[in-house]
Amino acid sequence: MTDDPVTNRYDHSEIRLRFAAEADVGAILDCIEGLAEYEKLAHEVVADEDGLRSTLFGDRPAAEVVLAELGGETAGFALFFHNYSTFLARPGLYLEDLYVKPELRGRGIGRALLSKLAEIAVDRGCGRFEWSVLDWNEPAIRFYESLGALAMDGWTTFRMTGEALRRLAGDE
Amino acid sequence: MTDDPVTNRYDHSEIRLRFAAEADVGAILDCIEGLAEYEKLAHEVVADEDGLRSTLFGDRPAAEVVLAELGGETAGFALFFHNYSTFLARPGLYLEDLYVKPELRGRGIGRALLSKLAEIAVDRGCGRFEWSVLDWNEPAIRFYESLGALAMDGWTTFRMTGEALRRLAGDE
Repeated sequence: MTDDPVTNRYDHSEIRLRFAAEADVGAILDCIEGLAEYEKLAHEVVADEDGLRSTLFGDRPAAEVVLAELGGETAGFALFFHNYSTFLARPGLYLEDLYVKPELRGRGIGRALLSKLAEIAVDRGCGRFEWSVLDWNEPAIRFYESLGALAMDGWTTFRMTGEALRRLAGDE
Repeated sequence: MTDDPVTNRYDHSEIRLRFAAEADVGAILDCIEGLAEYEKLAHEVVADEDGLRSTLFGDRPAAEVVLAELGGETAGFALFFHNYSTFLARPGLYLEDLYVKPELRGRGIGRALLSKLAEIAVDRGCGRFEWSVLDWNEPAIRFYESLGALAMDGWTTFRMTGEALRRLAGDE
Protein backbone atom coordinates (compact mmCIF):
# COMPACT_ATOMS: atom_id res chain seq x y z
CA MET A 1 0.00 0.00 0.00
CA THR A 2 1.34 3.42 -0.89
CA ASP A 3 0.10 6.73 0.35
CA ASP A 4 -0.22 9.53 -2.14
CA PRO A 5 2.06 12.16 -0.57
CA VAL A 6 -0.04 15.05 -1.87
CA THR A 7 -3.58 14.00 -1.04
CA ASN A 8 -2.80 11.58 1.78
CA ARG A 9 -5.15 9.15 0.06
CA TYR A 10 -4.56 5.59 -0.92
CA ASP A 11 -4.87 4.84 -4.59
CA HIS A 12 -8.59 4.04 -4.92
CA SER A 13 -7.74 0.80 -6.64
CA GLU A 14 -6.48 -0.40 -3.24
CA ILE A 15 -9.85 0.17 -1.58
CA ARG A 16 -12.02 -2.85 -2.25
CA LEU A 17 -15.78 -2.50 -1.84
CA ARG A 18 -18.03 -5.55 -1.77
CA PHE A 19 -21.42 -6.61 -0.48
CA ALA A 20 -21.11 -8.33 2.89
CA ALA A 21 -21.99 -12.01 3.29
CA GLU A 22 -23.03 -14.04 6.33
CA ALA A 23 -19.40 -14.81 7.21
CA ASP A 24 -18.86 -11.07 7.75
CA VAL A 25 -21.17 -10.63 10.76
CA GLY A 26 -18.19 -10.31 13.11
CA ALA A 27 -16.66 -7.53 11.00
CA ILE A 28 -20.05 -5.80 10.77
CA LEU A 29 -20.51 -5.93 14.55
CA ASP A 30 -17.01 -4.44 15.04
CA CYS A 31 -17.98 -1.52 12.80
CA ILE A 32 -21.32 -1.00 14.60
CA GLU A 33 -19.55 -0.92 17.96
CA GLY A 34 -16.87 1.43 16.65
CA LEU A 35 -19.49 3.80 15.28
CA ALA A 36 -21.52 3.74 18.50
CA GLU A 37 -18.40 4.65 20.45
CA TYR A 38 -17.70 7.58 18.13
CA GLU A 39 -21.32 8.74 18.48
CA LYS A 40 -21.09 8.44 22.30
CA LEU A 41 -23.97 5.97 22.14
CA ALA A 42 -22.15 2.71 22.95
CA HIS A 43 -24.55 2.08 25.84
CA GLU A 44 -27.40 1.71 23.34
CA VAL A 45 -25.89 -1.22 21.42
CA VAL A 46 -27.56 -4.55 22.13
CA ALA A 47 -26.83 -6.05 18.68
CA ASP A 48 -24.92 -9.34 18.57
CA GLU A 49 -23.73 -11.62 15.78
CA ASP A 50 -26.80 -13.88 15.96
CA GLY A 51 -29.14 -10.90 15.63
CA LEU A 52 -27.21 -9.55 12.64
CA ARG A 53 -27.13 -12.98 11.03
CA SER A 54 -30.89 -13.54 11.26
CA THR A 55 -31.98 -10.01 10.26
CA LEU A 56 -29.40 -9.32 7.53
CA PHE A 57 -28.76 -12.77 6.06
CA GLY A 58 -31.97 -14.72 6.70
CA ASP A 59 -35.04 -15.25 4.54
CA ARG A 60 -36.03 -11.58 4.52
CA PRO A 61 -32.91 -9.39 4.76
CA ALA A 62 -33.92 -6.12 6.40
CA ALA A 63 -30.91 -4.15 5.16
CA GLU A 64 -27.77 -4.52 3.01
CA VAL A 65 -24.13 -3.95 3.89
CA VAL A 66 -21.19 -2.84 1.76
CA LEU A 67 -17.80 -3.51 3.33
CA ALA A 68 -14.68 -1.51 2.53
CA GLU A 69 -11.39 -3.38 2.71
CA LEU A 70 -7.83 -2.14 2.58
CA GLY A 71 -5.01 -4.64 2.29
CA GLY A 72 -7.50 -7.44 2.90
CA GLU A 73 -8.63 -6.01 6.27
CA THR A 74 -12.03 -4.48 7.00
CA ALA A 75 -11.63 -0.70 6.92
CA GLY A 76 -15.26 0.35 7.31
CA PHE A 77 -18.82 -0.30 6.25
CA ALA A 78 -22.05 1.21 5.01
CA LEU A 79 -25.42 -0.28 5.97
CA PHE A 80 -28.47 0.80 3.99
CA PHE A 81 -32.09 -0.04 3.18
CA HIS A 82 -34.69 1.33 0.83
CA ASN A 83 -37.14 3.96 1.94
CA TYR A 84 -39.95 5.42 -0.18
CA SER A 85 -41.07 8.84 -1.35
CA THR A 86 -44.82 9.19 -1.88
CA PHE A 87 -44.28 12.53 -3.62
CA LEU A 88 -42.05 10.83 -6.23
CA ALA A 89 -43.75 7.40 -6.13
CA ARG A 90 -40.22 6.00 -6.12
CA PRO A 91 -38.03 4.15 -3.65
CA GLY A 92 -35.06 5.93 -2.15
CA LEU A 93 -31.84 4.70 -0.61
CA TYR A 94 -31.34 5.40 3.10
CA LEU A 95 -27.86 5.10 4.57
CA GLU A 96 -28.33 4.06 8.18
CA ASP A 97 -24.67 3.78 9.18
CA LEU A 98 -21.38 4.81 7.63
CA TYR A 99 -18.16 4.07 9.48
CA VAL A 100 -14.44 4.10 8.74
CA LYS A 101 -11.95 2.90 11.35
CA PRO A 102 -10.29 5.92 13.00
CA GLU A 103 -6.75 4.97 11.98
CA LEU A 104 -7.81 4.74 8.32
CA ARG A 105 -9.65 8.04 7.98
CA GLY A 106 -8.61 10.73 5.52
CA ARG A 107 -7.84 8.23 2.78
CA GLY A 108 -11.05 8.51 0.77
CA ILE A 109 -12.68 5.37 2.15
CA GLY A 110 -15.81 7.14 3.39
CA ARG A 111 -16.19 8.93 0.10
CA ALA A 112 -15.71 5.67 -1.81
CA LEU A 113 -18.48 4.06 0.26
CA LEU A 114 -20.82 7.02 -0.31
CA SER A 115 -20.03 6.97 -4.02
CA LYS A 116 -20.78 3.25 -4.19
CA LEU A 117 -24.14 3.78 -2.50
CA ALA A 118 -24.96 6.65 -4.85
CA GLU A 119 -24.20 4.31 -7.74
CA ILE A 120 -26.50 1.63 -6.27
CA ALA A 121 -29.22 4.28 -5.80
CA VAL A 122 -28.97 5.42 -9.42
CA ASP A 123 -28.81 1.84 -10.75
CA ARG A 124 -31.95 0.90 -8.80
CA GLY A 125 -33.95 3.94 -9.92
CA CYS A 126 -33.99 5.64 -6.52
CA GLY A 127 -35.09 9.27 -6.46
CA ARG A 128 -33.20 10.18 -3.31
CA PHE A 129 -30.15 9.20 -1.27
CA GLU A 130 -30.58 10.16 2.39
CA TRP A 131 -28.94 9.75 5.77
CA SER A 132 -28.93 11.43 9.19
CA VAL A 133 -26.10 13.02 11.09
CA LEU A 134 -25.62 14.18 14.66
CA ASP A 135 -25.72 17.98 14.74
CA TRP A 136 -22.40 18.22 16.63
CA ASN A 137 -20.57 16.23 13.95
CA GLU A 138 -19.39 19.29 12.03
CA PRO A 139 -16.61 17.60 10.00
CA ALA A 140 -19.19 15.15 8.64
CA ILE A 141 -21.70 17.92 7.92
CA ARG A 142 -19.11 19.95 5.99
CA PHE A 143 -18.15 16.86 4.02
CA TYR A 144 -21.77 16.05 3.12
CA GLU A 145 -22.44 19.64 2.06
CA SER A 146 -19.32 19.60 -0.12
CA LEU A 147 -20.87 16.67 -2.00
CA GLY A 148 -24.06 18.62 -2.72
CA ALA A 149 -26.29 17.08 -0.02
CA LEU A 150 -28.94 19.35 1.49
CA ALA A 151 -29.92 19.46 5.17
CA MET A 152 -33.64 18.79 5.61
CA ASP A 153 -34.14 21.52 8.19
CA GLY A 154 -37.59 21.94 9.67
CA TRP A 155 -38.32 18.25 10.23
CA THR A 156 -38.04 16.25 13.44
CA THR A 157 -38.16 12.48 13.73
CA PHE A 158 -40.30 10.96 16.46
CA ARG A 159 -39.59 7.52 17.88
CA MET A 160 -41.77 5.16 19.87
CA THR A 161 -40.35 2.07 21.59
CA GLY A 162 -40.97 -0.42 24.40
CA GLU A 163 -43.96 0.06 26.65
CA ALA A 164 -45.36 3.09 24.77
CA LEU A 165 -45.27 1.08 21.53
CA ARG A 166 -46.97 -1.95 23.07
CA ARG A 167 -49.61 0.26 24.68
CA LEU A 168 -50.46 1.93 21.36
CA ALA A 169 -50.50 -1.46 19.61
CA GLY A 170 -53.10 -2.75 22.06
CA ASP A 171 -55.20 0.34 21.75
CA GLU A 172 -57.16 -0.34 18.60
CA MET B 1 -72.81 6.40 11.44
CA THR B 2 -73.29 7.92 14.85
CA ASP B 3 -71.07 10.44 16.53
CA ASP B 4 -70.26 9.97 20.17
CA PRO B 5 -71.55 13.29 21.62
CA VAL B 6 -68.92 13.35 24.35
CA THR B 7 -65.73 12.55 22.51
CA ASN B 8 -66.82 13.56 19.01
CA ARG B 9 -65.45 10.25 17.83
CA TYR B 10 -67.10 7.65 15.70
CA ASP B 11 -67.52 4.27 17.25
CA HIS B 12 -64.20 2.62 16.32
CA SER B 13 -66.12 -0.33 14.91
CA GLU B 14 -67.20 2.00 12.10
CA ILE B 15 -63.62 2.78 11.11
CA ARG B 16 -62.41 0.02 8.84
CA LEU B 17 -58.68 -0.45 8.37
CA ARG B 18 -57.32 -2.69 5.63
CA PHE B 19 -54.17 -3.16 3.57
CA ALA B 20 -54.50 -1.39 0.23
CA ALA B 21 -54.56 -3.37 -3.02
CA GLU B 22 -53.69 -2.39 -6.59
CA ALA B 23 -57.24 -1.17 -7.25
CA ASP B 24 -56.71 1.49 -4.56
CA VAL B 25 -54.00 3.49 -6.34
CA GLY B 26 -56.46 6.29 -7.12
CA ALA B 27 -57.48 6.60 -3.46
CA ILE B 28 -53.81 6.51 -2.41
CA LEU B 29 -52.90 9.29 -4.87
CA ASP B 30 -55.80 11.40 -3.53
CA CYS B 31 -54.40 11.04 -0.01
CA ILE B 32 -50.83 11.88 -1.12
CA GLU B 33 -52.06 15.03 -2.86
CA GLY B 34 -54.19 16.01 0.13
CA LEU B 35 -51.24 15.58 2.47
CA ALA B 36 -48.91 17.56 0.20
CA GLU B 37 -51.40 20.41 0.15
CA TYR B 38 -51.59 20.42 3.96
CA GLU B 39 -47.79 20.39 4.16
CA LYS B 40 -47.59 23.29 1.65
CA LEU B 41 -45.50 21.01 -0.57
CA ALA B 42 -47.99 20.29 -3.37
CA HIS B 43 -45.48 21.60 -5.94
CA GLU B 44 -43.17 18.67 -5.09
CA VAL B 45 -45.63 15.92 -6.03
CA VAL B 46 -44.81 14.16 -9.29
CA ALA B 47 -46.35 10.81 -8.29
CA ASP B 48 -49.04 9.38 -10.54
CA GLU B 49 -51.16 6.21 -10.50
CA ASP B 50 -48.79 4.29 -12.78
CA GLY B 51 -45.82 5.09 -10.56
CA LEU B 52 -47.68 4.01 -7.43
CA ARG B 53 -48.87 0.82 -9.14
CA SER B 54 -45.41 -0.28 -10.22
CA THR B 55 -43.57 0.62 -7.00
CA LEU B 56 -46.22 -0.46 -4.45
CA PHE B 57 -47.92 -3.40 -6.18
CA GLY B 58 -45.27 -4.80 -8.54
CA ASP B 59 -42.77 -7.61 -8.05
CA ARG B 60 -40.85 -5.83 -5.28
CA PRO B 61 -43.23 -3.61 -3.29
CA ALA B 62 -41.19 -0.74 -1.86
CA ALA B 63 -43.73 0.17 0.84
CA GLU B 64 -47.10 -0.90 2.27
CA VAL B 65 -50.31 1.06 2.66
CA VAL B 66 -53.11 0.78 5.22
CA LEU B 67 -56.34 2.52 4.19
CA ALA B 68 -58.91 3.84 6.67
CA GLU B 69 -62.52 3.78 5.52
CA LEU B 70 -65.60 5.30 7.06
CA GLY B 71 -69.00 4.42 5.62
CA GLY B 72 -67.28 2.68 2.73
CA GLU B 73 -65.36 5.82 1.67
CA THR B 74 -61.62 6.37 1.98
CA ALA B 75 -61.03 8.54 5.03
CA GLY B 76 -57.22 8.49 5.14
CA PHE B 77 -54.14 6.37 4.81
CA ALA B 78 -50.81 5.39 6.31
CA LEU B 79 -47.85 4.42 4.12
CA PHE B 80 -44.91 2.68 5.74
CA PHE B 81 -41.79 0.62 5.10
CA HIS B 82 -39.24 -1.14 7.26
CA ASN B 83 -36.07 0.57 8.32
CA TYR B 84 -33.28 -1.02 10.38
CA SER B 85 -31.47 -0.31 13.63
CA THR B 86 -27.87 -1.51 13.74
CA PHE B 87 -27.75 -0.87 17.50
CA LEU B 88 -30.66 -3.30 18.02
CA ALA B 89 -29.91 -5.59 15.04
CA ARG B 90 -33.65 -5.44 14.40
CA PRO B 91 -35.90 -3.96 11.74
CA GLY B 92 -38.09 -1.00 12.62
CA LEU B 93 -41.28 0.37 11.14
CA TYR B 94 -41.08 3.80 9.52
CA LEU B 95 -44.29 5.69 8.86
CA GLU B 96 -43.65 7.83 5.79
CA ASP B 97 -47.10 9.41 5.46
CA LEU B 98 -50.18 9.64 7.66
CA TYR B 99 -53.21 11.52 6.37
CA VAL B 100 -56.85 11.92 7.33
CA LYS B 101 -59.21 13.95 5.14
CA PRO B 102 -59.79 17.38 6.73
CA GLU B 103 -63.56 16.96 7.08
CA LEU B 104 -63.08 13.68 8.97
CA ARG B 105 -60.50 14.79 11.52
CA GLY B 106 -61.12 14.63 15.27
CA ARG B 107 -62.87 11.27 15.07
CA GLY B 108 -59.98 9.02 16.07
CA ILE B 109 -59.05 7.91 12.56
CA GLY B 110 -55.44 9.07 12.78
CA ARG B 111 -55.04 7.40 16.14
CA ALA B 112 -56.60 4.18 14.79
CA LEU B 113 -54.09 4.18 11.90
CA LEU B 114 -51.15 4.78 14.27
CA SER B 115 -52.41 2.04 16.57
CA LYS B 116 -52.70 -0.38 13.64
CA LEU B 117 -49.12 0.37 12.59
CA ALA B 118 -47.88 -0.08 16.16
CA GLU B 119 -49.61 -3.48 16.16
CA ILE B 120 -47.92 -4.41 12.87
CA ALA B 121 -44.55 -3.27 14.31
CA VAL B 122 -44.97 -5.41 17.42
CA ASP B 123 -46.24 -8.42 15.44
CA ARG B 124 -43.23 -8.24 13.10
CA GLY B 125 -40.67 -7.93 15.89
CA CYS B 126 -39.74 -4.32 15.18
CA GLY B 127 -37.74 -2.52 17.86
CA ARG B 128 -38.90 0.96 16.90
CA PHE B 129 -41.79 2.80 15.29
CA GLU B 130 -40.65 6.11 13.79
CA TRP B 131 -41.89 8.98 11.64
CA SER B 132 -41.01 12.59 10.89
CA VAL B 133 -43.07 15.73 11.37
CA LEU B 134 -42.74 19.31 10.16
CA ASP B 135 -41.64 21.47 13.08
CA TRP B 136 -44.52 23.96 12.58
CA ASN B 137 -47.14 21.23 12.88
CA GLU B 138 -47.72 21.73 16.61
CA PRO B 139 -51.07 19.91 16.88
CA ALA B 140 -49.43 16.79 15.43
CA ILE B 141 -46.39 17.12 17.71
CA ARG B 142 -48.58 17.43 20.82
CA PHE B 143 -50.58 14.40 19.70
CA TYR B 144 -47.44 12.29 19.13
CA GLU B 145 -46.00 13.29 22.50
CA SER B 146 -49.29 12.36 24.20
CA LEU B 147 -48.81 8.84 22.83
CA GLY B 148 -45.35 8.55 24.37
CA ALA B 149 -43.27 9.21 21.24
CA LEU B 150 -39.94 10.99 21.76
CA ALA B 151 -38.50 13.70 19.50
CA MET B 152 -35.06 12.69 18.21
CA ASP B 153 -33.52 16.12 18.74
CA GLY B 154 -29.92 16.61 17.71
CA TRP B 155 -30.12 14.78 14.38
CA THR B 156 -30.49 16.27 10.91
CA THR B 157 -31.31 14.34 7.75
CA PHE B 158 -29.32 15.07 4.62
CA ARG B 159 -30.69 14.45 1.15
CA MET B 160 -28.95 14.12 -2.19
CA THR B 161 -30.89 14.11 -5.46
CA GLY B 162 -30.56 14.75 -9.20
CA GLU B 163 -27.28 15.99 -10.58
CA ALA B 164 -25.39 15.85 -7.24
CA LEU B 165 -26.44 12.21 -6.84
CA ARG B 166 -25.40 11.27 -10.38
CA ARG B 167 -22.09 13.08 -9.96
CA LEU B 168 -21.29 11.21 -6.74
CA ALA B 169 -22.37 7.91 -8.35
CA GLY B 170 -19.88 8.44 -11.17
CA ASP B 171 -17.09 9.38 -8.84
CA GLU B 172 -15.83 5.99 -7.72
